[in-house]
Amino acid sequence: MATDIQTSDLKSPVDVAEYLFRRLHEVGIRAIHGVPGDYNLVALDYIPQTGLSWVGNCNELNAGYAADGYARVKGMGAVVTTFGVGELSTLNAIAGGYSEFVPMVHIVGTPSTLSQRDGMLLHHTLGNGNFEVFANMSKDISCAVAKLNDPREAAVLIDHAITECWRQSRPVYITLPTDMVQKKIEGERLKSPLDLKVPENPADKEDYVVDTILKYLHEAKNPIILVDACALRHHCIDEVHDLIEKSGLPTFVAPMGKGAVNETLPNFGGVYAGNGSNAGVAARVEAADLVLNIGSVKSDFNTAGFTYKVSQLSTIDFHSNLMRIRFSEYPGIHMKGVLKKVTAKMGKLNVQPGPSHDNTIAKKDQAMSNEEVISHDWLWPRVGQWLQPEDIVVTETGTAEFGIWETRYPKGVTALSQVLWGSIGWAVGACQGAALAAKELGNRRTILFEGDGSFQLTAQELSTMLRNDLKPIIFVICNDGYTIERYIHGMDAKYNDVQTWKYKDLVAAFGAKPGQAKTYQVKTKQEAEDLFQNKDFGAASCLQFVELYMPMEDAPKALKLVTEAAAENNAKQ
Amino acid sequence: MATDIQTSDLKSPVDVAEYLFRRLHEVGIRAIHGVPGDYNLVALDYIPQTGLSWVGNCNELNAGYAADGYARVKGMGAVVTTFGVGELSTLNAIAGGYSEFVPMVHIVGTPSTLSQRDGMLLHHTLGNGNFEVFANMSKDISCAVAKLNDPREAAVLIDHAITECWRQSRPVYITLPTDMVQKKIEGERLKSPLDLKVPENPADKEDYVVDTILKYLHEAKNPIILVDACALRHHCIDEVHDLIEKSGLPTFVAPMGKGAVNETLPNFGGVYAGNGSNAGVAARVEAADLVLNIGSVKSDFNTAGFTYKVSQLSTIDFHSNLMRIRFSEYPGIHMKGVLKKVTAKMGKLNVQPGPSHDNTIAKKDQAMSNEEVISHDWLWPRVGQWLQPEDIVVTETGTAEFGIWETRYPKGVTALSQVLWGSIGWAVGACQGAALAAKELGNRRTILFEGDGSFQLTAQELSTMLRNDLKPIIFVICNDGYTIERYIHGMDAKYNDVQTWKYKDLVAAFGAKPGQAKTYQVKTKQEAEDLFQNKDFGAASCLQFVELYMPMEDAPKALKLVTEAAAENNAKQ
Repeated sequence: MATDIQTSDLKSPVDVAEYLFRRLHEVGIRAIHGVPGDYNLVALDYIPQTGLSWVGNCNELNAGYAADGYARVKGMGAVVTTFGVGELSTLNAIAGGYSEFVPMVHIVGTPSTLSQRDGMLLHHTLGNGNFEVFANMSKDISCAVAKLNDPREAAVLIDHAITECWRQSRPVYITLPTDMVQKKIEGERLKSPLDLKVPENPADKEDYVVDTILKYLHEAKNPIILVDACALRHHCIDEVHDLIEKSGLPTFVAPMGKGAVNETLPNFGGVYAGNGSNAGVAARVEAADLVLNIGSVKSDFNTAGFTYKVSQLSTIDFHSNLMRIRFSEYPGIHMKGVLKKVTAKMGKLNVQPGPSHDNTIAKKDQAMSNEEVISHDWLWPRVGQWLQPEDIVVTETGTAEFGIWETRYPKGVTALSQVLWGSIGWAVGACQGAALAAKELGNRRTILFEGDGSFQLTAQELSTMLRNDLKPIIFVICNDGYTIERYIHGMDAKYNDVQTWKYKDLVAAFGAKPGQAKTYQVKTKQEAEDLFQNKDFGAASCLQFVELYMPMEDAPKALKLVTEAAAENNAKQ
Repeated sequence: MATDIQTSDLKSPVDVAEYLFRRLHEVGIRAIHGVPGDYNLVALDYIPQTGLSWVGNCNELNAGYAADGYARVKGMGAVVTTFGVGELSTLNAIAGGYSEFVPMVHIVGTPSTLSQRDGMLLHHTLGNGNFEVFANMSKDISCAVAKLNDPREAAVLIDHAITECWRQSRPVYITLPTDMVQKKIEGERLKSPLDLKVPENPADKEDYVVDTILKYLHEAKNPIILVDACALRHHCIDEVHDLIEKSGLPTFVAPMGKGAVNETLPNFGGVYAGNGSNAGVAARVEAADLVLNIGSVKSDFNTAGFTYKVSQLSTIDFHSNLMRIRFSEYPGIHMKGVLKKVTAKMGKLNVQPGPSHDNTIAKKDQAMSNEEVISHDWLWPRVGQWLQPEDIVVTETGTAEFGIWETRYPKGVTALSQVLWGSIGWAVGACQGAALAAKELGNRRTILFEGDGSFQLTAQELSTMLRNDLKPIIFVICNDGYTIERYIHGMDAKYNDVQTWKYKDLVAAFGAKPGQAKTYQVKTKQEAEDLFQNKDFGAASCLQFVELYMPMEDAPKALKLVTEAAAENNAKQ
């Protein structure tokens, strides 16, 4: 359709697919998730030659989840699918990235521009000649769309999409028609790296905001810091840590912000989520006369059912596109510059001590024997004692997502959870992506806490972990079904049951080679304790899979609160 | 938001959810596929009390595929998902139903109308207060959308959606907010069954079309019949059979129409798909001077890469919304009435003999030993000898989909394949739905031919088959990866490989109880032959799973033709 560029006009001709993959390499991506399909095959040939590896997932949804997990560890992820059938299968994962601010590049191999122009009746189409339907479905869950239908604009569109993906920390959608893959474009452009810097704030506006913040901060008798997801997602975590360490202010995290802050700092106080907060935290946070509220997402699950109780009159909100001081809004200001200046200029503040937060197991839960079942109250602090610095911890929506609020992390832990989007099954795929990222970063441990019901959605990605020789530690909580749903409605309903699998037998069935994996089964506190004390286990030298049995009706406190609120909200007339 | 109806004004008050499920029961649905999620739980309570059963799939995509398979056997299927996360996961299955004309009702449990009005920051949302994004994504892959936001219009919307689903034979999308589930509406309306009849054609227009057809038919020296998917999907198969049997005309099927016609009829000649046709068929079809082309879908895979060679000048096209005689079009006419009248009025026609079609194995392929590998040329006619009347045969996109062209079916076989949409993995879910439908219909055998690469996408639905005590016979063709992709591009590319699984071990891992399943492994022709002769195996008294090994580079002739054409089309500049 478009006129080709004359190759003789190009200083350093490069194929469109190569350009795209070299840009992905430039922003730190080393592995491409996805599933082959006839409209993307030729493009996949460019992956090894651009220094990338092909993961080869079992299906597209799982590939999308994996790209999400990879992105949360490495900064950005990518998934390749094919037109229609492939891309639609991964939409839930992409929407999750949009909802949770995860930068993912979704590349779709499409029929050639000629076939599209002619409305050909091809496989993977709706049979109605409309080739735009699927792209339209991705529009509202992507922060940029790049249809590479013309070699003359391909490089600009690719650069724009990847830049927006990073800056807005959200998915972008790129279509690559089969006849564009090998089209030549100017490669000189690759010598200029993409500009991923956060644009500077207008100086006078920023100063005004900073001065106002400092005024309130100095007046405050009892200020605190509350850190949430967007501090991480918008790349402000160094600035946030500077503020926390230099101010010494009591610091808390919202559940989605867990892992953003070094939890071993003396001024770290725990998780704040209204009624679902760690012991002593709610009273402390709600007594503050000023809350520096950084990157907040006040969703139902992130606030234990909207039980967040901090007045906007004592709040300063830091966001990537907006600052809000009490009720005064300052759009177009990025928190990054503000945080830097506030920390630099704040001087001495009033610091009232906060609660301390550790992994103490309550006395009532300490009993240990081979008759004691494993309870959530015992498990999560115990996990905190067992974790190591730099671990990557993935928790599935359900009991794990809420249980982990009671775990204080060692320094440097990266925590993955999907508190807002909450798609069950996500964590298995995300664990694959995270474990691959961990391997690239030098074998940090990757640990997954997964529910049995959730595991069933995406179980086959265990195979992809084996295929890529990854070594995560996977705990599947065996408690006979969808516990989170049971707590919302239908505690004993058949629809909340799942088929009972021999979970750990899947490791061999999915083709683990001798020595490539170990499996375990723990049904009592003592067995779990023995496992946590097992040094070989902790060394994570191969893929390890643990069936961890818990009673069907046990659940973390926060889950109970959240599900009660959800049920009430559903029923409200 | 909407004003409630006063229950005292209602003669027979019935809850919205009950109304919906009773209508589904009325149109023949007995099982609801899906996955529970917090916005649909209360609705699920109504399933047993309306005479339906809950299937409980492992994930939503598979549930959608299963509803598709169920619909192809029972006439209509239904799948329930939850807002956002659940519904997006099944979009690929719904789009497949749209593409392939499969009537499926997709019911989505959504947040309450109050939460939507208030734009609450709930889990399973994009966090931007926009509750319409997901419904918009389903719009172009549904032939009707019903948002049940108001009890006063709920019944009308439900009735309209289900009627359109049947008449257009395509998916519909219904949202059921949590606060609407138990709202009372008038149940008297349920006493009037839905009107699913095809509307009558305008009599004079129909007569004009019929007379024109008869003129051409009587003039023709050598007319034939060609039957395709839409004859089945638009419920005209009785009329088509009447025409075939009374006229005695040589009759052929396009690949998507396979199973529509009784293949044991003496005038059945085999599959016509241009160069991919059964032996002798292309010459015979292309020599006809008139083709009654019923329900045709001329897609790439259905015509072996657009190698269909019948002139429009010698074609009469029968469709559900259009008749076409040579180049003259008659929109707004349904083939059903036309077929009836043509058969009634046609009298004696010129009938030239057609080729006969059976399951003869070519001489070169007959050698049988424990050294002979299983080849496609041998397998598919042998399958045809083994199949029984009334079997349901599901073939996955890939080698099975094309191999089955060489199988002549016994009488009454129902054949499921996804020739146009072609989403790998579909057939495992579809097999679950079909096997459940088969059980409801009195235990017809359900037989799946699945590729190993494709199986990996949706393997866990084997668990759902066990959970529902279904007894399909599953052949997994073990040939080390995506053979259809290899033939398009990258015969030895790593991206076309898959992890080697111990496929049959999954049956036990997914929780088969003692006696509930048997597994087999066949690697040579002799082993396969022994299995086909095994009467216990053929009796299908439990779930049976066969690993059937074939060489990586072997493929049916038609697959080779189609993939060559696809690769050429992809590369065209």
